[in-house]
Amino acid sequence: MTELRVGVAGLGTVGGGLVKLLATQRSVIEERCGLSVLVTAVSAKDRSRERGFDLGAAVWHDDAVSLAKDENVDVVCELIGGIGGVALEVCEAAIHESKHVVTANKAMMAVHGARLATLSEDKGVGIHYEAAVAGGIPIIKAIREGLSGNSVSGVVGILNGTCNYILTNMHDAALAGESRDFETVLEEAQKLGYAEADPSMDIDGVDAAHKLAILTSVAFGSVIDFDSIHVEGIRHISAVDIEYAIELGYRVKLLAIARKGMEGIQQRVHPCMVAERATIAHVDGVNNAIVVQSDFAGTTIYEGPGAGESATASAVASDLVDIARQHRTPTFSVPTTQLEKRSSAPMEQISGPYYIRLMLVDKPGVIADIAACLRDQNVSVESMIQRSRNPGDAVPVVLTTHEAQEISLQRALHSIDALQSVLETPRMIRIEEI
Amino acid sequence: MTELRVGVAGLGTVGGGLVKLLATQRSVIEERCGLSVLVTAVSAKDRSRERGFDLGAAVWHDDAVSLAKDENVDVVCELIGGIGGVALEVCEAAIHESKHVVTANKAMMAVHGARLATLSEDKGVGIHYEAAVAGGIPIIKAIREGLSGNSVSGVVGILNGTCNYILTNMHDAALAGESRDFETVLEEAQKLGYAEADPSMDIDGVDAAHKLAILTSVAFGSVIDFDSIHVEGIRHISAVDIEYAIELGYRVKLLAIARKGMEGIQQRVHPCMVAERATIAHVDGVNNAIVVQSDFAGTTIYEGPGAGESATASAVASDLVDIARQHRTPTFSVPTTQLEKRSSAPMEQISGPYYIRLMLVDKPGVIADIAACLRDQNVSVESMIQRSRNPGDAVPVVLTTHEAQEISLQRALHSIDALQSVLETPRMIRIEEI
Repeated sequence: MTELRVGVAGLGTVGGGLVKLLATQRSVIEERCGLSVLVTAVSAKDRSRERGFDLGAAVWHDDAVSLAKDENVDVVCELIGGIGGVALEVCEAAIHESKHVVTANKAMMAVHGARLATLSEDKGVGIHYEAAVAGGIPIIKAIREGLSGNSVSGVVGILNGTCNYILTNMHDAALAGESRDFETVLEEAQKLGYAEADPSMDIDGVDAAHKLAILTSVAFGSVIDFDSIHVEGIRHISAVDIEYAIELGYRVKLLAIARKGMEGIQQRVHPCMVAERATIAHVDGVNNAIVVQSDFAGTTIYEGPGAGESATASAVASDLVDIARQHRTPTFSVPTTQLEKRSSAPMEQISGPYYIRLMLVDKPGVIADIAACLRDQNVSVESMIQRSRNPGDAVPVVLTTHEAQEISLQRALHSIDALQSVLETPRMIRIEEI
Repeated sequence: MTELRVGVAGLGTVGGGLVKLLATQRSVIEERCGLSVLVTAVSAKDRSRERGFDLGAAVWHDDAVSLAKDENVDVVCELIGGIGGVALEVCEAAIHESKHVVTANKAMMAVHGARLATLSEDKGVGIHYEAAVAGGIPIIKAIREGLSGNSVSGVVGILNGTCNYILTNMHDAALAGESRDFETVLEEAQKLGYAEADPSMDIDGVDAAHKLAILTSVAFGSVIDFDSIHVEGIRHISAVDIEYAIELGYRVKLLAIARKGMEGIQQRVHPCMVAERATIAHVDGVNNAIVVQSDFAGTTIYEGPGAGESATASAVASDLVDIARQHRTPTFSVPTTQLEKRSSAPMEQISGPYYIRLMLVDKPGVIADIAACLRDQNVSVESMIQRSRNPGDAVPVVLTTHEAQEISLQRALHSIDALQSVLETPRMIRIEEI
C-alpha cells in the first residue's frame, strides 16, 4: 500500500478544513507516515455550492452512506455532525465494511461511542475521535498514550470556547471598570461568529458535557456515561458576579470536571470560581485547556484552540496519520470488554467552598437570619461583603463559605430563599481548587 | 507474545521510579496494551545498595552492556545518563541485538541521537526518548504524533526546572518586597534538592539546550544540531532585574527557543522577559512548559512537572506501552534519510525588543551619551527608568528598546561599555513575545 484513501463525509467547516490541510501538507504527511493520504471521495448535501477549495479527482457521493461503502475508500471521515441520523449511519456502514472511521462528532461519541467502539473492535478497525474534544489540542492522545503508565484521578477542562469567550469578555470589561452583562456579550459573540444563532448547546453546558463524557471514559477506562453528567450553563452569571470574583481573587470559568472517588465517578459541568494564580484561570478567549491529575506524571496541562476549521482539521489529520502508521489503540484506553461500568457519584456528595450572592432588604437582623440558615446546615462562612448601604431597600450581599457539603449548602440556600427579606433566588457558584 | 520483557540499566532516581511504576501499574498497563510489561533484568553500579524497592525475579547484571545482550530482554531502558560512556555502549549494544531502546538521556540524544536513530532504523527497532524532554509532559508524542498534520514554525519552552525554580523564587521574593539575589536562592535550591551540588549544567543553560536540540529535530524534521545552539544561563540575573521586570509588566524566564525562518533554524537558550499576561509567564517552580506554534493547530501549550522520579518514570512507561502496542514512529518525525540538514541562523540575525540595565555615574550628559550610542546603531528607546538620584555617584538605569537587530544592539552595548561613566558591563535581557 502506498496510499491511504480517505472519504470525507461532510464538507462544512471541518470537512473543508481537512481537504485544505491534506492538500497543503501532502508531502510533509507522506514523509511522516510513508503513505500518500489522499481524498478519493467526498459527500455533502449540496453539490452545486461554491466551496472555495479544490476537490481534485475525488468522487462525489450524494449519499454519505454510499461514500462509506465506496471500495476506493480506506478510511471514512465523518464530519457531518449530529447525535444520530446520517452521521451515525455513515459510521456504522463504514465499520460494517471494515473501514477505519475518523470523526469530529462529540455528540455522537458521547451518546453512541461505547456501541461504536464495540462494533469497530469486532471488525478489527479503529474509530478515531481526537477532533471531538478540544480541537487542536491532542488531548485524547495525551491521556490514552502519553499518560498510559498512569492512573488518572481527575480531569478538569475548559471545553467550550463560546462560554470561555463570553466569560473572558465580561472579565476584561469588569477590569476596565465597565459592566457588561451576559446578554450583551452573547449578542456580540454571535455577531463575531463565536456563538451560534441558537447558542443553547454551548451556553447551557451541553457541548462541554459531550466532551467531558468522552474524556471521562478515556481517562478512567469506564463505559461512557453522558446521562449521569450534572450540567449547568453560564446564563445566570452576572456582571456583578464577575466583579466580586475579581475582588475575591478569582476568575469565573465554565469547567467540565471528572473525578474518580470511592463513591464512583463524579462528572459535572458548571461555572466555577478558580484562583487567579491557577494556570487555568489564564486560559482566555476561545481557547480550551485540560488539566489532568495522575499518580505518576502528576498534574499536566494542555492548552490551545478548542475549535475552528484549521485546529479541528489538524486533529482529524493526526488520526489519519496514526491510521497510516498502523497505530492501534483501544478506543477508550482499554478494550471495550474491559471497560468498567462505574457508578456515578451524586452531586449531593461533592464538597468544597462556595460563593453565594444574595439580594437582600438592607435592614437590621437580615444577615443574622442568613447566618442562622447556614449554621443550621453546618456551613461555615469565610467572608461576607456588603459593599453599599441602602437602608430599607435592596442591596447585594456576597458570602464565601469554607468547605461545605453540596447537600448542606443546597438546603441552606433553600431556607435562605424562603426568608422574607431575600428578594431574589440566591445565586451560588462553586469555588474549585485546581 | 504475552509479555514485554524489560531490562533496566541504571537504578538511580529514574530507574527506581520505573521499577516502582511497573509494579504498581502492572494490571492497568496490561489492560491497556494487552501485554504484561515485566522487568526481567536490571543493572547498576552497586549491587549491595539498599534501594527500598523490590527487584522481584529480575536477573542482575554487573555489566550494563551484558544486560543489553540478555536474551530474556526485549526492550532495554537506558537510565544511566551521561553523553557517552556506558550509556551509549548500552544503547548501541541493544540496537545491535535488534532490541528496542528506551532512554531518558537528553545529553546522549542531543549529541548522538542522529546516529542512534539511523542505527535503530537499520535494525528495524525503535529508540524512544519521551523521558529525555520535559519529564511527565508527553511533548515528543504531542509534536511527533498529535501535530503530525502540521508544519511547526516555532517551539518555545521552559525546559529546566532548576532555573525556573530559582527565577520563580526570586520573583516571589521581589513581589513580597524582599530582595533575594541569585546566589542566595541557588544555595537554598541546593539544600532543597532542586539544584545539584555542581549546578552548572542547569544554571548555565546546557541541560535546556540538550532538550531543545531534541525538540528542534522532532519539530522540524531536521538533523539534530546541538552545537549550533546559542546558550546563556541565568547567573547574571540580579534581584534588580527581577524587580524591574515586575515594574515593566514582565516575568524573567529561561527560555529555549527554536524557530524556522528563511535563513535556517534559529536555536537559542537564554533568559527572557515575557509579558505577564502570557501563559508561559505563569509556569512556576520546577514545572516545565512548551509552547508549539504550528500552521493548522495554531498555538498549543503543554505544562507539567519537568523532572522527578515519578514524572520521568511515567514518560519511560508510556514509551514501553507504545512498544507493547507495536506503535512505530520515525525517531525524529521522519525517516532518518529524509531528515534535513538545515543551516542554523546566526544569533546576530535575530531581532526583538531588549531590556538593558546599566550602572552609571549620576551626572548631567551621561544619558545623552548612552542615547547617542543607541542612535548610532539605529536602536530606538522605548522607555527609560532611573528610579533614584545619587549625584556624582553610581545609579542603576534601565532602558527598554523597540524592536532592534541583535547585532546592532550588541554594537551599541559595546560602545556603551566603553563610556567612562558606565561603571559595570551593561546587562541585557531579550524581551520575547509569545
